[in-house]
Amino acid sequence: MTVRQVAITDVLLRDGFQIEPTIIPTADKIQLGRGLLDAGLTALEAGAFVHPEKVPQMADTAEVVGTLGALAPASRLYTLVFNERGARRALSAGVRHVRLVVSASDGHSRANAGADTAGALRRLEPTAAILKAAGVTVEASIATAFVCPYDGETDPDRTARVAAALAALGAGPLHLADTIGAASPWHIERTVAAVRRELPGVALGLHLHDTYGMASANAWTGIQLGIRHFDASLGGIGGCPFAPGAAGNIATDDLVNLLHHAGIATGVDVDRLVGVRDQLHTLLGRRLDSALAGAKATPARLRAL
Amino acid sequence: MTVRQVAITDVLLRDGFQIEPTIIPTADKIQLGRGLLDAGLTALEAGAFVHPEKVPQMADTAEVVGTLGALAPASRLYTLVFNERGARRALSAGVRHVRLVVSASDGHSRANAGADTAGALRRLEPTAAILKAAGVTVEASIATAFVCPYDGETDPDRTARVAAALAALGAGPLHLADTIGAASPWHIERTVAAVRRELPGVALGLHLHDTYGMASANAWTGIQLGIRHFDASLGGIGGCPFAPGAAGNIATDDLVNLLHHAGIATGVDVDRLVGVRDQLHTLLGRRLDSALAGAKATPARLRAL
Repeated sequence: MTVRQVAITDVLLRDGFQIEPTIIPTADKIQLGRGLLDAGLTALEAGAFVHPEKVPQMADTAEVVGTLGALAPASRLYTLVFNERGARRALSAGVRHVRLVVSASDGHSRANAGADTAGALRRLEPTAAILKAAGVTVEASIATAFVCPYDGETDPDRTARVAAALAALGAGPLHLADTIGAASPWHIERTVAAVRRELPGVALGLHLHDTYGMASANAWTGIQLGIRHFDASLGGIGGCPFAPGAAGNIATDDLVNLLHHAGIATGVDVDRLVGVRDQLHTLLGRRLDSALAGAKATPARLRAL
Repeated sequence: MTVRQVAITDVLLRDGFQIEPTIIPTADKIQLGRGLLDAGLTALEAGAFVHPEKVPQMADTAEVVGTLGALAPASRLYTLVFNERGARRALSAGVRHVRLVVSASDGHSRANAGADTAGALRRLEPTAAILKAAGVTVEASIATAFVCPYDGETDPDRTARVAAALAALGAGPLHLADTIGAASPWHIERTVAAVRRELPGVALGLHLHDTYGMASANAWTGIQLGIRHFDASLGGIGGCPFAPGAAGNIATDDLVNLLHHAGIATGVDVDRLVGVRDQLHTLLGRRLDSALAGAKATPARLRAL
């Protein structure tokens, strides 16, 4: 297998911070986002246009995206949008890159979006139309694509039908999310196969959490399946407020390190990335979950091997 | 891919404990070993016949193996042996299963065994002969099979030559060890391929550490390459006193959980295993490194999904 390059979207500013118990100051978000861009990441999930009372941590999304966009005009700063109202707020904020979100399982969809999967998809029709008409890049994330904390395992064909509905709205790539980190490589293989049967040639991404230590196995399975888009969060932090049992995202530092050791380029400078992670550590004042944050050998030492 | 069954050797009592700063009481080792066997593990790495002053934690190996062997006569209790003297001590203790150990890199071999790889292999010739003559099962572990903390990346052909030398001594399966957890799936793939070119049909195992969060990706790569023997340590503890920068082994609890979720049997009862892990947690009085030890959802909850 020869893989040359993998694209990573760091989701620290959105998924990473959304369940932090204390509000992260806007200036800190901007500093960290800038650090990530300086380290070579070209795509960030930078916020969400959701009700500020429902997810207060995301209330400053417009300011974060506006400031980072002015600092780094070539970067892609994604914001999550669930409905028409969110789309209009995104457009007002001058956003150029959006991720629509829908849960493949009804249980998580009701908790996260207040409607079952079919209802949430119906809402996304006018939402996508508004965004596409404005020339915005529209990608999509499928939450609970493999396992749901409420409904159990998600039928791969169900995830495939949701993917088809999103593709019909003009969204792509489509990012399959293991929202609670309970998928195994077997789940990844069969669900990716089902989505590709429904949508041959579709560009897919993986959004992985590491609750049970399976995230790196799942990421590598994705690589072997030809997936070249991955979400990850600096330091491995994050989680969903409506997904009981979820742990943090696969860590950007660990994923970059893994890929580089496997001879796959990411465009990211690990030393700079580790510097930003240390800033995050100072900000949060707790041990981060990434393996690299606890590794006894430094990445520089390892690379020198 | 249909994989039915994978064999796990828990190495808690040897690799897990060998760098613990305080001596683990023999009675605790026996209780934990018994718990692992009761949980369904059939193979343990139970100790090492090394100089008691060099690795004091292993001084009670004869007693641990003798007691566990009497309690569970059908279990396979492996002890590490590096030389003739160790082999004679093993035979005196009534050991029936031995792992020879040699480092594929000279740097680690000198630090760990006091001789370069060639010298260590020469010592193993009479050692293996004594053991084979006594009817003992002789397997072998190849330390630093992928990366060495002193010499850098290990040439896959070098590891293959060491494997061939061990096979010539009648040892097998051969367990390839990522002693410092610095191998990526790419390293696993190319080294396994090199060994198989040298020794077609050889039974291989993987011994993985998780310093950089790559262990589950490496384990899954092994599964996909047809490897069916894995070492793991309960709670993810362990490390080598002569391998700076190493972190703990891949956790038995995480590996079993991963395999079960991928539909692969291990014969291990996860609930019982978690019970033994909790005993280990109490004994050591610190947070263990396995993901399952920190997972917010219990394995029972997960299996019910």
